[in-house]
Amino acid sequence: MRKALFETGATDFSYSISMTTRKPRKGEVNGVDYYFVSKEEFEENIRNGEMLEYAKYVDNYYGTPLKYVNETLDQGKDVFLEIEVNGAMQVRANCPDAVFVFLTPPDLMELKHRLIGRGTDAMDVINKRIKKAVGEIRMMRNYDYAVVNDEVSQAVERIQMIIRSERLRVTRVMPDYEQMIGDE
Amino acid sequence: MRKALFETGATDFSYSISMTTRKPRKGEVNGVDYYFVSKEEFEENIRNGEMLEYAKYVDNYYGTPLKYVNETLDQGKDVFLEIEVNGAMQVRANCPDAVFVFLTPPDLMELKHRLIGRGTDAMDVINKRIKKAVGEIRMMRNYDYAVVNDEVSQAVERIQMIIRSERLRVTRVMPDYEQMIGDE
Repeated sequence: MRKALFETGATDFSYSISMTTRKPRKGEVNGVDYYFVSKEEFEENIRNGEMLEYAKYVDNYYGTPLKYVNETLDQGKDVFLEIEVNGAMQVRANCPDAVFVFLTPPDLMELKHRLIGRGTDAMDVINKRIKKAVGEIRMMRNYDYAVVNDEVSQAVERIQMIIRSERLRVTRVMPDYEQMIGDE
Repeated sequence: MRKALFETGATDFSYSISMTTRKPRKGEVNGVDYYFVSKEEFEENIRNGEMLEYAKYVDNYYGTPLKYVNETLDQGKDVFLEIEVNGAMQVRANCPDAVFVFLTPPDLMELKHRLIGRGTDAMDVINKRIKKAVGEIRMMRNYDYAVVNDEVSQAVERIQMIIRSERLRVTRVMPDYEQMIGDE
């Protein structure tokens, strides 16, 4: 999704490169795909409060270094993170201004259509999908927007629309106006 | 603004025609530009709770009949209202789901540029503009989005973007998902 989003060339925001302790795969470049570091280095970053968010999956750490994010925000530029639910909730706790877009798996919407045209699927198939959907919905509740990740180009367009629209929020533009007035 | 918005042909929402007690101007058509009614009829509507919002300007009433708005919303369609601040705050009180876009007059942004390039204007001109701006900003605080009304086509595009983006809000799509799950 991030790749498709930035390939449009229409993005006026930056993305943060994640840090990980997993080994680079073939073709992956340090500082482009990830910052590849040792377990020791990553844990030192955690101890020093230098990670905006992080998580451990299958013995490997993945996370967002705080430095780049802060530097970019200080320049007045938005930062885009493509992260898991766990990490997103850490960002939510640290960045009250952040906007959270939940990418809904396509089958969640398919499920809806299936339930509408009921009877076409075996009950165990439906039940399995519903169970998965319930889990998804619980997580979605903590996000601001939901975008169905079916057709990538449409999802990309919607994410860009959300970002542009969020920039027009009164809560975001208000400080500018207030400062403008306060200066006089 | 409303006219330009609906002239794009890209709108998938309806607009509500206002009701007024003022006399039709040349070329204005009843049921197109306004519902033109008598003072007695308007006041009966108010008494019967049939107005979503209304205000009185220079001896004439202007307002939004509740019936059309409710019927359209019941069909699952969004309704667009182009109304004054006073009316908007009445809608805010009655419709917690509504989204409020404040059209910022172009001079409010011009003012900013003027203040940046200070010294080009006489202080009394600047002061007058600032006073007006302060009033605008106070009202803006009660809105969700601010759109600068400088170039109409750009403002129209932004309003459409806000509407499409707001439809992706988790709080709006959540009931659908919950109902889908709850049905099982």
